Amino acid sequence: MIKVGVFYPQSKTFDWDYYLGRHTPMVQKLMGPALKKVEIEQGIAGGAPGTPATYQTVCTLHFDSVEAFQTAFAPCAQQIMGDIANYTDAQPVVQIGEVKL
Amino acid sequence: MIKVGVFYPQSKTFDWDYYLGRHTPMVQKLMGPALKKVEIEQGIAGGAPGTPATYQTVCTLHFDSVEAFQTAFAPCAQQIMGDIANYTDAQPVVQIGEVKL
Repeated sequence: MIKVGVFYPQSKTFDWDYYLGRHTPMVQKLMGPALKKVEIEQGIAGGAPGTPATYQTVCTLHFDSVEAFQTAFAPCAQQIMGDIANYTDAQPVVQIGEVKL
Repeated sequence: MIKVGVFYPQSKTFDWDYYLGRHTPMVQKLMGPALKKVEIEQGIAGGAPGTPATYQTVCTLHFDSVEAFQTAFAPCAQQIMGDIANYTDAQPVVQIGEVKL
């Protein structure tokens, strides 16, 4: 199992209604059954008292393997990445992680 | 539900045996039943082809609420944070997120 993490740093704008109501359902539809699970968090605080979260939003997408992700993502990458500007000016950090626990 | 994310940037050392075999079980024991779930990923690739993961390790700790986390963490914070130097030289980014999906 792998997870694709999408970390949105704090920025000027983040349209939660669009993100949850339009972008995420679009991603789920485009990626199809290869996308096993989507998790979304809103950053509310940093680790040290009184500090803000580094990332305003963290999205985690679950797939069976790197290959399963790449196969599902390639045909719709442009559409998904191109939609980001519709809800935020943040440039997300994206990475792939292998599940250890 | 909230999640505490612990993101370890790439660094010189990360002792996975110690982290999974000693640090994580210690955290689970110290935090007790307030800690609902622990997830650990090893970063294996960045979002762009041929790039490394920004974070070599991502740990996600699940709690019912910020208060539940703070109450469980306060008495053992020093012991947990002090143990980090035993497995890595990385300074983790820590943040609290509210589960939206």
